[in-house]
Parts: sequence; structure tokens; C-alpha cells
Amino acid sequence: MTQFAATCPHHSLTHNNKTIGSMCIITTRSFLLIKILQSHSCALTCFTLQLFELESCTYTYLLADTETKEAVLIDPVLETVDRDLKLIHELGLNLKVAVNTHCHADHVTGTGIMRKKVVGLKSAISKFSGASADIQLSEGDKITFGKQYLTVRETPGHTDGCVTLVLADQSMAFTGDALLIRGCGRTDFQQGCAKTLYQSIHEKIFTLPDECLVYPAHDYLGRTVSTVGEERKFNPRLTKNLDEFMDIMKNLNLPKPKKIGINIIDNTNLYCASYQKVIYCFFENVKISIKISI
Amino acid sequence: MTQFAATCPHHSLTHNNKTIGSMCIITTRSFLLIKILQSHSCALTCFTLQLFELESCTYTYLLADTETKEAVLIDPVLETVDRDLKLIHELGLNLKVAVNTHCHADHVTGTGIMRKKVVGLKSAISKFSGASADIQLSEGDKITFGKQYLTVRETPGHTDGCVTLVLADQSMAFTGDALLIRGCGRTDFQQGCAKTLYQSIHEKIFTLPDECLVYPAHDYLGRTVSTVGEERKFNPRLTKNLDEFMDIMKNLNLPKPKKIGINIIDNTNLYCASYQKVIYCFFENVKISIKISI
Repeated sequence: MTQFAATCPHHSLTHNNKTIGSMCIITTRSFLLIKILQSHSCALTCFTLQLFELESCTYTYLLADTETKEAVLIDPVLETVDRDLKLIHELGLNLKVAVNTHCHADHVTGTGIMRKKVVGLKSAISKFSGASADIQLSEGDKITFGKQYLTVRETPGHTDGCVTLVLADQSMAFTGDALLIRGCGRTDFQQGCAKTLYQSIHEKIFTLPDECLVYPAHDYLGRTVSTVGEERKFNPRLTKNLDEFMDIMKNLNLPKPKKIGINIIDNTNLYCASYQKVIYCFFENVKISIKISI
Repeated sequence: MTQFAATCPHHSLTHNNKTIGSMCIITTRSFLLIKILQSHSCALTCFTLQLFELESCTYTYLLADTETKEAVLIDPVLETVDRDLKLIHELGLNLKVAVNTHCHADHVTGTGIMRKKVVGLKSAISKFSGASADIQLSEGDKITFGKQYLTVRETPGHTDGCVTLVLADQSMAFTGDALLIRGCGRTDFQQGCAKTLYQSIHEKIFTLPDECLVYPAHDYLGRTVSTVGEERKFNPRLTKNLDEFMDIMKNLNLPKPKKIGINIIDNTNLYCASYQKVIYCFFENVKISIKISI
């Protein structure tokens, strides 16, 4: 089969003749030909929904094959598990895999509790994360849902076990904490390494088509999506050379993540197959976390 | 021209044979035919980007014609004006209109300051809002950007001046505070009227195609998009009859919006063409708002 770029140039935005933005919709006239196509092809189909967790500014992604209804959830958060499962139920989806792009330090994963609530659901994470899960992922692995699949690209640097998940047609990449919109994951704790992160992004993400949509695990400024082309052109860190990048990363002086005490020291996120209920309360305006093992 | 439904059934999700979800992507095979189409048609094209303001949980939407680069911004927020303008600049867009779906009570609109920063930019709001703006909107008006346009549907009930903006092909509706995801705008202050809101949603929004994407002005649970079909089926308020709906709305017992003191009493949002800078500080853990007229 002849190969075509992942997204539609008719819907793309260009800047100095370079495609940089491409969140497109199917409109009246193009829809006609897709209807025709439908009658005599096995075109790939994929439903995608972005969800947000307000406290940690984490994005969770729900993907589904529109024909078989098999679904994958990327980076679910403990606090929003019930929201996600209700939506999955309403949409009539069959959740097959809940995957973490890495072992998070800023929120507690929802995959552990989801496994207990959804029959047959498998958790997944990189084999280099140090975390336990039903599926241990490595470079080139495919996470299949119906006729769709995500391909694993290992993108370490923020942590050793960071992966980027790329949709089969390379129209979307779920970059976790490796590449963020106009930024990238920090490299000053866990197994962070600025040089490794720089190489990961340039070799594994920036080699994707410019039109490929970039869906990160977080955004703290309310941006929802970018493209590889935009980040190659406008990312203030990744447009620098390696030495400049390492210097930037060395001098970020970021505060410690809110839940690093829960997630790293106590290893909650190192066991995707089990979980601890975390309850919050306030005492003289100081937020207290209380963990209950279940 | 023969009319077709707004979104692609090949990409839609069904539940009990009813289309309820349809956030679709164009994939490899369908892309082939769109390429062919492109060479001999004048198909409509539209870029759409959702943005989020964290404090008020407000969604801002950037829409652009991919050919002419003319753009419209829906419900910009004062605090995120610089973010939005930077993005518009990077994408090479020409912002023509900044439109408010209604006079907001929970955040300060960004349209006033944007008008001062962007040459030729017009602000727009319903003529029934009581607010001043360059363009006073009413039922059936079109907000044009390139070959695209949004049609105004008046949907009062949360306020007298609430409108829903519908993309030309009815694939997307920006519902403001009229219809929210699994909810709706409150009706207990300003010109709120539960009966009017119920009629607005049923007559002006639920008459759109089931596949039409619903993009609200807010979501407090991190959901980003719904469809008319989903809301017709699952909205816990709007699936009730009018009497039950009015009873629900009467007993919500919601707290006063955070910025109602700024936005309603002081009329900041009643003048889209001017603005006041709002600065926040903390005094003994109490958040204080200080307004500076500019």
C-alpha cells in the first residue's frame, strides 16, 4: 500500500511553508469521500478522548477502536478512576489495557484500582520503570485494541522507564513526561538525565512527521495539544544544542513534586497491580495525606 | 449540493445502535481520498484548538480557517491572554473576532485587553447580554473567518445573553454555560430561568445532529468534550421532564461564583471593549482581589 503522511495537509496550518499545526476536523465535503471509502476498504478508525485531572494537571487519554469498541487508557489518575470508568461504561467500551507512560512522581496511578474493578483489564508499564504490571513494555512492542495499536518508543531521560506511545498511522504520539508542550520533563530526580532525554526526544519523537499530534502527560498552562512540527520549531529547550539544553535543565531549580513522598519513597506507583487509597485532609491550612492500604 | 451529516459515522461510537461519541481522526486510508478531493474541490477546512484556564476551569477555543489563516477566539480569559496571543502568533494566525458566549460571572473576559493588543480585532457578545462590544450578536448571525463561519443560536436561561455558536457544518457546537458535559449552567442569579434554559437546550442544541461535538465553556471534572447524542442520552438533568428539571435547578444550593463580586457588581464583564487588571494576593490565607482600571 502506498504510504501517506499521517494527517491531512488540507486541514493543516503552515508557517513559513512548514506544517506546524494540524488539529483537524472532517467537514461536509471531505466527509462524502470518506463515506465512499467506507464501503470498500478496511480503513483504520480510532476514537480519542482527552481527560484532565485538576490537582496534578495530568492528562489521561481514552482511545478506542470504533468498530470493536476495544479501548486503551493512558495514564489514569487514582482520583479520577470513577469518572473514567463511568465514561467508558456509557460509551459501551471494553477496556483492555491501562498503560502508564512512566512511573509518576506527581500523582498516584489509577491502573491498580482499575484492575480490580474491570474484569480482564491488564496494566502496562516499561520494563525499565522498576514497577510491577501485567505487561512489561519495551521498544517496538505493540499495545493492540481492535484493529488499532500503539507502538512503544522508549524515551528515557525524565526516568529510565519513560515511553512514548505512537498511534499506528503516526498521527498521534502520547509523550508522557518526555516531551511537554514548549517544555520537557525535569531531569533532577529519580533516574533523570538531561543528555539521555535530549537524545530520546530528538531521535524518537522529532523523527515523527511534523503533523503528528503531541499529547503530553501534563500541561500547567492549559494547553491541550501540540504537534511535532510546532515543538521542533518553538520548544524553547529542545531547539537548543545539547550543551545549552543540559545547562537549562541543570538550572531549573524546581520544587519537589507534591506527591513524591507518596509515590517514590513509599513506592505506591511502583506497584501498578495494587494500590493504596490516599485521603486528604486539612489541618491548620496544611494539606495532610493519609494512606490506607487496600 | 447534497447534504451529509456533520461527522463521519465510520469514526463514530454507537451505543444501542445510537451514535453517541465521535471525536475522530483522519487516518492513513481516508487521507488518500481527502488528498484527491483537495485537488478538485473547495472543501471547508477548519483548525480547532481547545485551551484551559485552571482557576475558573474555563475553556477557550481557537478556530482558524486553514487556508486564509483567519481566526476566531471563543471565551478568552484575562489571565491567559498572553498565552493565547503567543500561540496565535506562533501559528501565524490573523485573529479577527474574540467572542464571548455570555457575560461571565466566574472569570474576567480577555476580549477587552485583546482588542488593545491586536490591531483590527473585534469583540462580540449577544445584544441581550447588557454588555458593550464591537459586534452585538443575535439569532442567526454569522461570525465569519475565512471560508468558515459560526452561526449564533440564542440559548438564554443561564443568562439572557447566552448564545451557542455552531460551526457551519454542524460538526461542533460551543455551548457556553447553557449545556455543560452531563450538566448545565446554573439559573439562580443574574437573569437565570430554569424553564427558559430547558427550552433553549432542547430546541436549539438537542436539535443538532447526535454526532455534533459539544464544547462547553467549563468542566470541573476534567472532561473536555461531549456530543449532542451523549448529552441527550446521559445528561442527568436534561433527560428529565421540565418539572423535574426545574425542581433540580431550584435545589442545587451552589455557592456564589468566585468572581461574581468583580464581574457583576463592578460590571467588569459588561464592557468587553475595556478592562480592569485584577491582581491577587494572600492575606492570612484569604485571597484578596485588587482591581486596577487601565
